[in-house]
Amino acid sequence: MPAPRTYLLAEIARRIDGELLGDGNPEIRGIATLRHAGPDDLSFLTQSRYRAELATTRAGAVLLAREDRDATQRARIICADPYLAYAKVAALLSPSPSPVPGTHGSAVVDPQASVGSGTQIGAFCSIGKGAVIGNDVIVAPGCVIGENVHIGDGSVLHGNVTIYVGVKIGQRAIIHAGAVLGSDGFGMARDGEGWRKIPQTGGVLIGNDVEIGANTTVDRGALDDTVIEDGVKLDNQIQIGHNVHVGAHSAFAGCVGIAGSARIGRRCTIGGGSVVLGHLEITDDVHVGAATVVTKSIRRAGEYVGLYPLQDRTVWARNAALLRNLDKLEKRVRELEAVLAGSKKSRS
Amino acid sequence: MPAPRTYLLAEIARRIDGELLGDGNPEIRGIATLRHAGPDDLSFLTQSRYRAELATTRAGAVLLAREDRDATQRARIICADPYLAYAKVAALLSPSPSPVPGTHGSAVVDPQASVGSGTQIGAFCSIGKGAVIGNDVIVAPGCVIGENVHIGDGSVLHGNVTIYVGVKIGQRAIIHAGAVLGSDGFGMARDGEGWRKIPQTGGVLIGNDVEIGANTTVDRGALDDTVIEDGVKLDNQIQIGHNVHVGAHSAFAGCVGIAGSARIGRRCTIGGGSVVLGHLEITDDVHVGAATVVTKSIRRAGEYVGLYPLQDRTVWARNAALLRNLDKLEKRVRELEAVLAGSKKSRS
Amino acid sequence: MPAPRTYLLAEIARRIDGELLGDGNPEIRGIATLRHAGPDDLSFLTQSRYRAELATTRAGAVLLAREDRDATQRARIICADPYLAYAKVAALLSPSPSPVPGTHGSAVVDPQASVGSGTQIGAFCSIGKGAVIGNDVIVAPGCVIGENVHIGDGSVLHGNVTIYVGVKIGQRAIIHAGAVLGSDGFGMARDGEGWRKIPQTGGVLIGNDVEIGANTTVDRGALDDTVIEDGVKLDNQIQIGHNVHVGAHSAFAGCVGIAGSARIGRRCTIGGGSVVLGHLEITDDVHVGAATVVTKSIRRAGEYVGLYPLQDRTVWARNAALLRNLDKLEKRVRELEAVLAGSKKSRS
Repeated sequence: MPAPRTYLLAEIARRIDGELLGDGNPEIRGIATLRHAGPDDLSFLTQSRYRAELATTRAGAVLLAREDRDATQRARIICADPYLAYAKVAALLSPSPSPVPGTHGSAVVDPQASVGSGTQIGAFCSIGKGAVIGNDVIVAPGCVIGENVHIGDGSVLHGNVTIYVGVKIGQRAIIHAGAVLGSDGFGMARDGEGWRKIPQTGGVLIGNDVEIGANTTVDRGALDDTVIEDGVKLDNQIQIGHNVHVGAHSAFAGCVGIAGSARIGRRCTIGGGSVVLGHLEITDDVHVGAATVVTKSIRRAGEYVGLYPLQDRTVWARNAALLRNLDKLEKRVRELEAVLAGSKKSRS
Repeated sequence: MPAPRTYLLAEIARRIDGELLGDGNPEIRGIATLRHAGPDDLSFLTQSRYRAELATTRAGAVLLAREDRDATQRARIICADPYLAYAKVAALLSPSPSPVPGTHGSAVVDPQASVGSGTQIGAFCSIGKGAVIGNDVIVAPGCVIGENVHIGDGSVLHGNVTIYVGVKIGQRAIIHAGAVLGSDGFGMARDGEGWRKIPQTGGVLIGNDVEIGANTTVDRGALDDTVIEDGVKLDNQIQIGHNVHVGAHSAFAGCVGIAGSARIGRRCTIGGGSVVLGHLEITDDVHVGAATVVTKSIRRAGEYVGLYPLQDRTVWARNAALLRNLDKLEKRVRELEAVLAGSKKSRS
Repeated sequence: MPAPRTYLLAEIARRIDGELLGDGNPEIRGIATLRHAGPDDLSFLTQSRYRAELATTRAGAVLLAREDRDATQRARIICADPYLAYAKVAALLSPSPSPVPGTHGSAVVDPQASVGSGTQIGAFCSIGKGAVIGNDVIVAPGCVIGENVHIGDGSVLHGNVTIYVGVKIGQRAIIHAGAVLGSDGFGMARDGEGWRKIPQTGGVLIGNDVEIGANTTVDRGALDDTVIEDGVKLDNQIQIGHNVHVGAHSAFAGCVGIAGSARIGRRCTIGGGSVVLGHLEITDDVHVGAATVVTKSIRRAGEYVGLYPLQDRTVWARNAALLRNLDKLEKRVRELEAVLAGSKKSRS
């Protein structure tokens, strides 16, 4: 990691387009939570439940929303969105590492592969024939990059990533350790008692500014490509099946599974541990909660959930047994309705 | 990937035992969906919802089921199961890669390991003492193969696979990148406030024609072996606990977890994200839906599901709250029944 | 694996503080289930359902609980907790492998890294600047260890593990193959249509005696650290989000996901496939069942579950449809109650 930089508070305010209230001269060395900040740190208030900590924080200055302008008298920067401002300041103070150009002596780069300028290839990397690695890329040790893979400028591959033949990745990608891109989709046809494998001859197309989490897997298409559009963010241990299409700027939390040929719109979010079944479509701006199973297409933007509520084990057992027999409970209600309808009639 | 081959349509019909209708002379270079096929491509109709595309496809020929024999007048091959036929043709046109025999100069192969003829060992592979790698095997770069591992003829290991000591794999296995076979089962005994590890001294036995997905993990047995029988297909990110037994030709979709000592029959399928609890038994020909938890043994073949239905968040919240109190609702119904029974009695 | 050792039965009884009944002279070479044990094996009875096998086992001797003292007349060791005794004997008979000190010629160790005495570094390992590897550590082939990582004495890293910059691991850790520690947390701020990455500048702190399963991922903190306390056991394919805190001696089964900033107490257990949402707190001694979603803080020790019961697909479909409309069923009950209340009133 590069050495963190320091900035005067006034300079930070200027760079994030914020309004400085108070002394602009403290030198800011870091960013920290209200609870842990010291006098050299800038802190931030983004959730009202932490407001009480404004009174006790030792932070040198604070990022505040407009409506919290007077919530403290200490040095502060007023901004439209303090969480976004925090992201910007953190990136100023802790810039992402730059490549140390060069190819480690132990790496095996096929003579017919091309590696751009300013690019760093780590120890024990293997790069196949016809692969094209762009400029200013970092490939950490232990990565296996197949034939004809393309990796765009400014991308970072962390350790032990595996990329199968022909996968195309855009610019400024971040691929975390252990991720696998381009493995065979799960395609096979019943053949007697067993299965016959269907060759997976499609590819994987990944746009610009995509981040892919540790040990996440993205399968290649069966015939057409699996597509991850620009700006998509995938957390760790996500599984993307063959021929899935993920629209731009969608973000999935950890352990999500997307089955084959599902088509997900733009700016969607999916909560951790959720499953999207195959061959269905989710329109733009859909937000799916955690641990939810999407069993049919969602054609209207909005928030969707489907998780079983947590209970004490004894209460759960009782209620789950009733749920297993919900049809019987409904039948009892129907019978009551029939009796009452009959008695009403008989009285009228 | 090997260069794709081309075939005359008549030759394809002959090889898959299909009935050719129309001109057998077009040269087929690829297989493609109805929507994307061109004049050199063979396409197929396997789901009725794509039938309309038969009219507009540019495909040179189409694979059709018997009942669709006259659904188009273009060149076509009539066959019993067009999906299986598609699998066969795709394998003709895109044969799987053959090994380029030899061991990469960087690989570390123990002098007491044995490597068969026609086998390719990639860069940065490490192969332990007593390991036996069969003939015509491909081991991609970055694989770690422990002592006394056996890998059968014709198998393929993709990049960065790790195989622990003593694991036995049959012939024609396909192990995708990042998979881990033979890691310790999760076995420990309570010891005061903490835990005492139980050495996992069983092995892993994998049959012939097994495919294992990217980043899937299979634990070794505690005392006896974990067993995956012939023809089993495991998708990505599946977890198989210690002493699990999976019967021949069963297939599990992505992100399935099978807890320790579960015993699953032959020809079973399990949908994505499902969990099978430990120490239970699933008989042959059971099909478990996606995101379903198998909490007890299943002794009758059939289809089983247990997933919470998806809803708009507001509706879900209302219904989930009622579900948490389903016992109270049932009590209200019981009270109504009692009142009605009483009033009937008083009226009679 | 080291060659297994053998012990006289009397010596085993002495070492685990058990009471020997019968001949102490048989030489014990292994430990096995009642069904598979032979005359050289010690076996054990830990679950009453296996009691019948006591009559037919060929085991040389058996570990029994006090209440089962007379369940057989063969040689036996009586102990307070036969499962714990089994763990201890298994460790005697199959001690964990010792490092073969030395660094493989192919490994790349930064000159400013430090490697302790008695430590074994495998082929194709890469160890970054400032890393400190303790004494008697085993690092299997293919591991990528970042700058300033600390690994305590007696730890074992299996193949292809990736550890990011600055992660601190205590003594006697076992990290299984493919695990990733210290990857970036999933932190980003909405910025127009897209997302802006928030640099993840916290670390990962792992205590002593922690075991981490194959392909498990632990993210680094956003600002503060992600913390895994002493004695925690994580099974395979677990995802731990940024700033999570796991209390000492907690154990999570496979495929669990813990979202960011969740705080989990000491001696908790979480069943396979469960999800804990972010920013919530689980107190000490909480036991969460399998495939359960923890949606709010749990402040009382106990057992909690929330999983949808498994059913035949047809029955499930009927009941799930009713569940989707549980509010309507409740309304019908309310209407029945109103009718009955009215008729009561009219009759009184």
